[in-house]
Amino acid sequence: MQPTLTTGAESLELSWPDGTIGQFPFIWLRDTDPSGFHPQTGERVFELTSVELDIAPTHVELAPGKLMVTWPGAQEPSAFDLEWIKAHRPGQRRADPAVVEPVLWRSELGGEGVPRHDAAGIMSSDAALSEWMADCKRYGLAIVTGLADNTDAGMDVARRVGHLRETNFGLTFEVMSKPDPNNLAYTSVALPLHTDLTNQELPPGFQFLHCMANEAQGGGSTFCDGAAAAEDLRKEDAEAFELLTSITIPFRFHDKVTDIRSRKAVITLDSDGDVSEICFNAHLADILDLNPEQMPAYYRAYRKFMGMLRAPKYGIALRLSGGEMVVFDNRRVLHGRESFDPSTGFRHLHGCYVDRGELDSRLRVVAAQA
Amino acid sequence: MQPTLTTGAESLELSWPDGTIGQFPFIWLRDTDPSGFHPQTGERVFELTSVELDIAPTHVELAPGKLMVTWPGAQEPSAFDLEWIKAHRPGQRRADPAVVEPVLWRSELGGEGVPRHDAAGIMSSDAALSEWMADCKRYGLAIVTGLADNTDAGMDVARRVGHLRETNFGLTFEVMSKPDPNNLAYTSVALPLHTDLTNQELPPGFQFLHCMANEAQGGGSTFCDGAAAAEDLRKEDAEAFELLTSITIPFRFHDKVTDIRSRKAVITLDSDGDVSEICFNAHLADILDLNPEQMPAYYRAYRKFMGMLRAPKYGIALRLSGGEMVVFDNRRVLHGRESFDPSTGFRHLHGCYVDRGELDSRLRVVAAQA
Repeated sequence: MQPTLTTGAESLELSWPDGTIGQFPFIWLRDTDPSGFHPQTGERVFELTSVELDIAPTHVELAPGKLMVTWPGAQEPSAFDLEWIKAHRPGQRRADPAVVEPVLWRSELGGEGVPRHDAAGIMSSDAALSEWMADCKRYGLAIVTGLADNTDAGMDVARRVGHLRETNFGLTFEVMSKPDPNNLAYTSVALPLHTDLTNQELPPGFQFLHCMANEAQGGGSTFCDGAAAAEDLRKEDAEAFELLTSITIPFRFHDKVTDIRSRKAVITLDSDGDVSEICFNAHLADILDLNPEQMPAYYRAYRKFMGMLRAPKYGIALRLSGGEMVVFDNRRVLHGRESFDPSTGFRHLHGCYVDRGELDSRLRVVAAQA
Repeated sequence: MQPTLTTGAESLELSWPDGTIGQFPFIWLRDTDPSGFHPQTGERVFELTSVELDIAPTHVELAPGKLMVTWPGAQEPSAFDLEWIKAHRPGQRRADPAVVEPVLWRSELGGEGVPRHDAAGIMSSDAALSEWMADCKRYGLAIVTGLADNTDAGMDVARRVGHLRETNFGLTFEVMSKPDPNNLAYTSVALPLHTDLTNQELPPGFQFLHCMANEAQGGGSTFCDGAAAAEDLRKEDAEAFELLTSITIPFRFHDKVTDIRSRKAVITLDSDGDVSEICFNAHLADILDLNPEQMPAYYRAYRKFMGMLRAPKYGIALRLSGGEMVVFDNRRVLHGRESFDPSTGFRHLHGCYVDRGELDSRLRVVAAQA
């Protein structure tokens, strides 16, 4: 259906029969001219400084399926596809196959409610890959089953998403009790719920933990949806929520070869005001350096949220078996484990990270090819 | 020198003879008790939810070099080293060897003003490594000289800092004219000044470009200190500066296997209000999706800053020779190149990235060992 066209002093308006109205400033039309993008790379090569801000077309007309805009001195008019320009009208966010509505969960989900996806399907089918990745975003947590008993098997699934995120713990890491540990994960003590590497400017996105063996007494895994707890905090205690979203606190990891520090708010909101990230790691929280006057209120807020994260209302327990891999959004879902007794059996998880941007990219590419 | 101690209702105060006064809330002292940190990993194992917010000590006293705080029910008092607690008093930012005061520069710096450091020194001496890394932070730009004529030589220098940051272009990349390019860098066209990978949630920090050959006509390198231009914009045009720091715009890179998108402000400030990051890449700027009413003011601000970045006042030119490597903070210093004629000779740069957090970590570790 062709729109109707109205030309104003600084913009033109297209009005479609379905009620959609687009306002198109002339400078936007000039900047967005399809011929200003490189034919092979798709990158913009048009140089905005080459035109004046108050540029106006000498002629505008509708052709079948096209909007034709002629600029002063230009040899060819800019030709915009009408469906394209409708989808890209200013003020309209671009459609994005990587946007998956999150499903917030609490303890009612239970370990049995965690989505499970078979490794063979993920490895062989783009549709299965995409469904699994969407669950990883929706719940922030999914289990991959049927992995072969070697350390490559889980990492191969991770690489179906994208390249691994290297950290100071390596490209991959072994979670097991080790001598001279530089990290509590490498002991047998209980780990209360936390997110990893809050001391990094960009904490890793999705974490993959492939269970190679879990024969020790204890060592169960625990998870909690930090976004759900944060949304409840917002309703129950607006002052605490405000402090945790606005005040940054220092985090630090250091050992003999590393000293990585960053400041983070415990709860981060996106531009729509939704919870987009949780940074909670009491182990890596550095000496608190707020002004003494801020401390009573901040400690109250922080301890309250900490208590919620440890409460039965939010946590679920899982006992991973060999051949299973848990995958979770480390920037949303907190993980922890019970202590275990290394003398009763071997417990070994093989892990890696892949960042959120990689997973979103793969979702878009698979959607474009489908 | 021993401080004097005053105990209040919710905190205690230490007052040193040099005039330093520290206020120490009781809850902070409990949370910061040195025995609450793991002896091997240094991580906090104390669980804040195990005590009440209004906890107060039963006894406080000064001992030689120590503050001793006894908690209700505790077997041992918390023992704080007085020098340590003075340095870590609330409201005092921790000393950080990675903080290097930036020197903003404009075209007067000239290519000859760019600091130069010899690769052999960096590879063999921690002091030379540290001086070079400090220059990389101070100027956002430094040249490494005397590299061997193989692609490992430059990457080995980068790995002296930390692990490489992998991107969709690989762990390392070759900047040369290629058939079927997915990126303008891989053509021979001129590249106006830009920062790389603004489409990523965390654009890469330091970029390393080892010049293997530069024999083609043209192909000179250009650089500009985006922080200097941004600070000038703040003085000259507060409205434009405000828009560029507060409004996020979409960036996107896509090819057959990748579709990575992110929203970014062109100028980002740190908590002190200083410019901490520039994201400027007209090639990767996606179709602008702001509301049409915002567009005239935003385009004015964006185009003005773009014009400054292209102005002779800010740019410097460098002609890299084989065996030289330019290293720059991709989140501060924009880079570009003149077009070149691939029929007149070979131009080949071998590149990689290392993130800011890695460089800061190495600065701290070297300082701690010095």
